[in-house]
Amino acid sequence: MFVPAIKGSATEEQQNKWLPLANTMQIIGTYAQTELGHGSNVRGLETTATFDPVTDEFIIHSPTLTSSKWWPGGLGKVATHAVVYAQLITDGKEYGVNGFLVQIRSLEDHFPLPGITVGDIGMKFGSGAFNSMDNGVLRFDRVRIPRNQMLMRVSKVTREGKYVESNIPKQIIYGAMVYVRQKIVADASIALSRAVCIATRYSAIRRQFGSPQNDQNGNGIETQVIDYKTQQSRLFSLLASAYAFRFVGEWLKWLYTDLIQKLEGHDFSTLPEVHACTAGLKSLTTSAAADGIEESRKLCGGHGYLSSSGLPELYATFVPACTYEGDNVVLLLQVSRFLMKTISQLQSGKKPTGTTAYIGHVEHLIQCHCKVKKAEDWLNLSVILEAFEARAIILLIACAENLTKFANPLQGFSELSSDLAEAAVAHCQVIVVSKFIEKLQQNIEGNGVKQQLETLCYIYSLNLIHKHLGDFLSTRSITPKQASLASDQLRSLYAKVRPNAIALVDAFNYTDHFLGSVLGSYDGNVYPKLYEEAWKEPLNESVVPDGYHEYIRPVLTQQLQNARL
Amino acid sequence: MFVPAIKGSATEEQQNKWLPLANTMQIIGTYAQTELGHGSNVRGLETTATFDPVTDEFIIHSPTLTSSKWWPGGLGKVATHAVVYAQLITDGKEYGVNGFLVQIRSLEDHFPLPGITVGDIGMKFGSGAFNSMDNGVLRFDRVRIPRNQMLMRVSKVTREGKYVESNIPKQIIYGAMVYVRQKIVADASIALSRAVCIATRYSAIRRQFGSPQNDQNGNGIETQVIDYKTQQSRLFSLLASAYAFRFVGEWLKWLYTDLIQKLEGHDFSTLPEVHACTAGLKSLTTSAAADGIEESRKLCGGHGYLSSSGLPELYATFVPACTYEGDNVVLLLQVSRFLMKTISQLQSGKKPTGTTAYIGHVEHLIQCHCKVKKAEDWLNLSVILEAFEARAIILLIACAENLTKFANPLQGFSELSSDLAEAAVAHCQVIVVSKFIEKLQQNIEGNGVKQQLETLCYIYSLNLIHKHLGDFLSTRSITPKQASLASDQLRSLYAKVRPNAIALVDAFNYTDHFLGSVLGSYDGNVYPKLYEEAWKEPLNESVVPDGYHEYIRPVLTQQLQNARL
Repeated sequence: MFVPAIKGSATEEQQNKWLPLANTMQIIGTYAQTELGHGSNVRGLETTATFDPVTDEFIIHSPTLTSSKWWPGGLGKVATHAVVYAQLITDGKEYGVNGFLVQIRSLEDHFPLPGITVGDIGMKFGSGAFNSMDNGVLRFDRVRIPRNQMLMRVSKVTREGKYVESNIPKQIIYGAMVYVRQKIVADASIALSRAVCIATRYSAIRRQFGSPQNDQNGNGIETQVIDYKTQQSRLFSLLASAYAFRFVGEWLKWLYTDLIQKLEGHDFSTLPEVHACTAGLKSLTTSAAADGIEESRKLCGGHGYLSSSGLPELYATFVPACTYEGDNVVLLLQVSRFLMKTISQLQSGKKPTGTTAYIGHVEHLIQCHCKVKKAEDWLNLSVILEAFEARAIILLIACAENLTKFANPLQGFSELSSDLAEAAVAHCQVIVVSKFIEKLQQNIEGNGVKQQLETLCYIYSLNLIHKHLGDFLSTRSITPKQASLASDQLRSLYAKVRPNAIALVDAFNYTDHFLGSVLGSYDGNVYPKLYEEAWKEPLNESVVPDGYHEYIRPVLTQQLQNARL
Repeated sequence: MFVPAIKGSATEEQQNKWLPLANTMQIIGTYAQTELGHGSNVRGLETTATFDPVTDEFIIHSPTLTSSKWWPGGLGKVATHAVVYAQLITDGKEYGVNGFLVQIRSLEDHFPLPGITVGDIGMKFGSGAFNSMDNGVLRFDRVRIPRNQMLMRVSKVTREGKYVESNIPKQIIYGAMVYVRQKIVADASIALSRAVCIATRYSAIRRQFGSPQNDQNGNGIETQVIDYKTQQSRLFSLLASAYAFRFVGEWLKWLYTDLIQKLEGHDFSTLPEVHACTAGLKSLTTSAAADGIEESRKLCGGHGYLSSSGLPELYATFVPACTYEGDNVVLLLQVSRFLMKTISQLQSGKKPTGTTAYIGHVEHLIQCHCKVKKAEDWLNLSVILEAFEARAIILLIACAENLTKFANPLQGFSELSSDLAEAAVAHCQVIVVSKFIEKLQQNIEGNGVKQQLETLCYIYSLNLIHKHLGDFLSTRSITPKQASLASDQLRSLYAKVRPNAIALVDAFNYTDHFLGSVLGSYDGNVYPKLYEEAWKEPLNESVVPDGYHEYIRPVLTQQLQNARL
């Protein structure tokens, strides 16, 4: 919550002003962009920053209820300063959204400064999760700040009130966006792998049904639930996704570094593709990870519903990633817009690059036929990748063709938005599958490790084919017979993963403390730990519960008229 | 939590014994079946009830940690008695699981009785939800109860320790199961419709992006999010599901009444079909409702994550229905087992009845061709039903054929269990679609109401076709071209629902109090209510938060060495 951000966005002049303060007194800052009525559409923000040339100040104001800042973390009770995004107005003209550093609480007694209304927005999903964070509401009643508290790196307002854009390219703003989103992809992989680690370990301990065999004491024992194919198909596909997201996350980290180097050299050519790629992967991985955490919880049966399983809070903490930093559906539509542009530029001979390079092979892909004739033929990474590429490009081209049927392109885009979002997902899956394959082409140490990862890559891909079978069949990327062979092959692949499943989740190297789950404990000592954990419940501190004499006993003695129960 | 259950299960003799007690002193009872290590597999319960002929008592005992009773509601701190399910042992022989009425706490001072260990199992998913319920753990150390506290309606133990089965048919036990599951289907419809009501109302209030038009004050206003097709396709399909589940729930209620009449007349012929039907519909509707509530929450963007939206707690309260009263995957496998039996009996000429009647038309269905040639051809309920029936039966027959390839039927069932579960889902969808259609064939009052419900029936069905397109295409129930026409038709259907969307959720007739959601308030006054609700957060009672002097100020004055933050 400290404000290193101002170092990046502020001019040198501003840093000189603020640094002495930072040396004697810390400030606690927050980033105040989202408003009660405005989230995804940043341009629609209503807070105003009006320049007053008489006093050389900006007047920060919340003109409506819906302009109240809403959600900033740490704002509710803790932050002393906020970087406030507001519509800049100078000389009677609006110049769009800019950032302003505004002190909101006194550094002496922590009281809100005059004109500031600030508080916490209340409880959120889950019992822990983000409830330890004071997400806040903030309103301004004509709060005045010095002109030089505007963040002036990209554009500034002069002493005379003139709005001037700097020569710093606007594109650098996207650099921060790319950074945050690639970080979220890495987080998605971590969150999903935590859930999968818990569910896999517990599935090896939990037994239910099955032909009773005799254990060493001669008692019948039931089947480990990890041995059920229904459990394997759900669990191992999530395990494969956790690995897939890890590899694509590592690659995105490299991509970000590469982008920053290019941006610093004023090469903006790859920015649109990189931006679309991170936006799409943020959407794909967070949706899949959130669903996967809940699925992992359900794979733990009733005990997954206990807080001590760690899974309810893991879900409640992770799931907002589907909404923040770009709502997942809005992001997919952005990606599809970029892809439609890429397709339309094919005719003018512009060659797609990076993650869209395959779109350049459209001629080949739309007429290629999947060569699978028997189940084992699916164990071929280039066959798989080609099927994914063919499906994606045929969906994209269908969208592009359908768009031409609308006289008004905006209306066409709106009408076809569900199809466009699905095509964007298909494109993003091409990226994840291809990066998994690239990883397998690298040197991987350890006896048999590469083979196991290859198995996971097949599971990830063939499961997606099964899940999106409608796409694959309707684009004729594969045939119904090949789909059925893929399902047969999947069953063999699960059998290959089964003996190494525990090793594959142990490999994430999470400590019991980090996992925070009795079901996922490393030693598998699940039941004693569940039992022990229950007794820590504060209700168990007294044998007879509070309220017994007030509520329970009157019920028992039928003096109900005196009871409030 | 009071024990009316004993009236149903106890003999007259027992009722005579307990009724005087109930007249002078109430008891608070719970149902103790599930154990720490045993849920779905009731036969695997470990608690024992051993008859001691010397004292005419049963000895109730928890021989292992995993035999601890776990989850019963009200057990942790409140219940005085429990109906305990245990393995009956008499004369050295085991006779399976039976119920026993066991007092666990003193009616004088509420202390656990000797030999009883009882407590609460701790926090669960969500901040409210089931955290107001004291789900408990219970262990017995050789607790003795009189012989006549065994529930002896179906089988009993004589004074001499002889196990005797009564002439009451065992099938009546299934009556209770059918009752509970049809009730859960009704609950699923209510829970989903609550969520959809909230998301629909809020989607009409929330505006974001879009070509700004001018409102009466000359200000640009954004597009209502309910007008986006991506929002419509998610929201209206959930709205349609809420109605579909309501109608199938109403029908299930009738089915239960009909079953009870038959059982009372000792007609057990429909029981297997009714049992499979309720098990399958419990699984289908609870999975769809739980996912739909979360989807509704995401459709409300960031504000859906606030507790004041009502959606997080609605989810946390509803989602255990996917696990309790039969895990949803386990139930689907039960349904598929019944369906495989139905298919295998076709050859012997046994005619399937009730919800499986369509399986009798297998000859017709496997060779029929969907007649859709243009988008509007999908507006034909019998065309739709036939496509669903064809897809279900072809999946079922494929499973039956694949099963014959295994020498060991059990192993075959295990290997193919994922396919079998998917075929069971296809069968259950036939039921829901057909009951929706039957509803439309009834007299429906109100101008235009029938037409709107018909539109929802189309949306429900065509959306399922889109979602399970892989099934429909691989079984060749429809062609890729017809699938594409279904998507076109869906868009027109959304446009038809849009003007009536609010009326269709108002029709659920939920009060604001029942909805418990500021986003879903009837008057649409969302933002003032969100703002007002925030100030009720206890953290806002003080301007400077507790802990400021201890934690925040030391950070600000850089006396970090003294701070615990």
